[in-house]
Amino acid sequence: MRSQSPPSVLRADAARNRERIIAAAAAVFAERGLDAATAEIAHRADVGEATLFRRFPTKDELIDAIIETRMEEVVALADAAASDPDPAVALERFMQDLVKQFSRDKGFFEAAGERCMSDPRFQPLRERAEAAVGRLLKGAQDAGAVRRDLSPSDISFLAGSALYAMEVSKPGLRDDLWKRYLRVILDGMKPEGASKLRPGAPKLG
Amino acid sequence: MRSQSPPSVLRADAARNRERIIAAAAAVFAERGLDAATAEIAHRADVGEATLFRRFPTKDELIDAIIETRMEEVVALADAAASDPDPAVALERFMQDLVKQFSRDKGFFEAAGERCMSDPRFQPLRERAEAAVGRLLKGAQDAGAVRRDLSPSDISFLAGSALYAMEVSKPGLRDDLWKRYLRVILDGMKPEGASKLRPGAPKLG
Repeated sequence: MRSQSPPSVLRADAARNRERIIAAAAAVFAERGLDAATAEIAHRADVGEATLFRRFPTKDELIDAIIETRMEEVVALADAAASDPDPAVALERFMQDLVKQFSRDKGFFEAAGERCMSDPRFQPLRERAEAAVGRLLKGAQDAGAVRRDLSPSDISFLAGSALYAMEVSKPGLRDDLWKRYLRVILDGMKPEGASKLRPGAPKLG
Repeated sequence: MRSQSPPSVLRADAARNRERIIAAAAAVFAERGLDAATAEIAHRADVGEATLFRRFPTKDELIDAIIETRMEEVVALADAAASDPDPAVALERFMQDLVKQFSRDKGFFEAAGERCMSDPRFQPLRERAEAAVGRLLKGAQDAGAVRRDLSPSDISFLAGSALYAMEVSKPGLRDDLWKRYLRVILDGMKPEGASKLRPGAPKLG
């Protein structure tokens, strides 16, 4: 019987359920918007609705959990990329990873992006993400590979820009087109041929 | 009485009505998607629904008319920009104009972009637009201001990319942020610091 399993198994079970619910909710919200039915999320996560509501009594708590998970992932992606010995390659790898993350969650971020960017509760996470991206950026700037007038928030906007081509060009176009445009953007981030940028990038949060 | 006006006045009236309907429909579609009610379009255009249906018996005809109008505008923007004596400035001006056009019609193109890009009926217009953009691009490439591995279809995707920042960053961010990102993209289009692009750009149509 489940209730007689040792506590560590129960905790592992609960953590797995939580992850499954967050992954399912992100996918369902991305497809149907934030109005999606919780029944569909529970079904997709393969948990009962009772389990879903026990974990996340309101939809807002579920949305917040997705945002937190994704922002933690951004920090993890930046830290993983930072292990590359070449700071320019590290930044490039991070931006590619970020485009892939945006791409997976595009529908969700379109719906929840405002909350993600401006809700005070995410301020500490925004600062951690900005610091992690800032370390990558500074490394590439110190190596002379990236222009000095770019800020951490520019990095995420520019990565997002590369996604646009996918959005307007779904029919029949190769889905790796974003790599082509990210390449042009990365070249535009180099000091060679850099024009003066105006005005300054916004602070996130 | 209206029916006794000379024919040229009637024609001018009809042309004005047509323009007003197209402008109103583009705005309403952008806000509410292609399912928007024709009553709202007629109201916004300040014409009767009978007039709307006489001009455009089906919604598809209305959507096609908007697409045609916008593609004609792209050709006109490219031709107007081409008057600049500096080919690099001409291309830059065109891309700025294109971003402004995308921005105004974003909701419409999100809904109708597929049709615009792949419907055979727009093939002649796509070719005219591609030729006009191609002339601008070739001028800038011949002047050594733009890398040779970019194609006309890249130009419109890259202009669109600059819009992304606006989309995910509505709250509290300056709406001229796209100019900052377009600047980085334009710098990435220069031969200086250009990396090898792969794979080739798609043909439009």
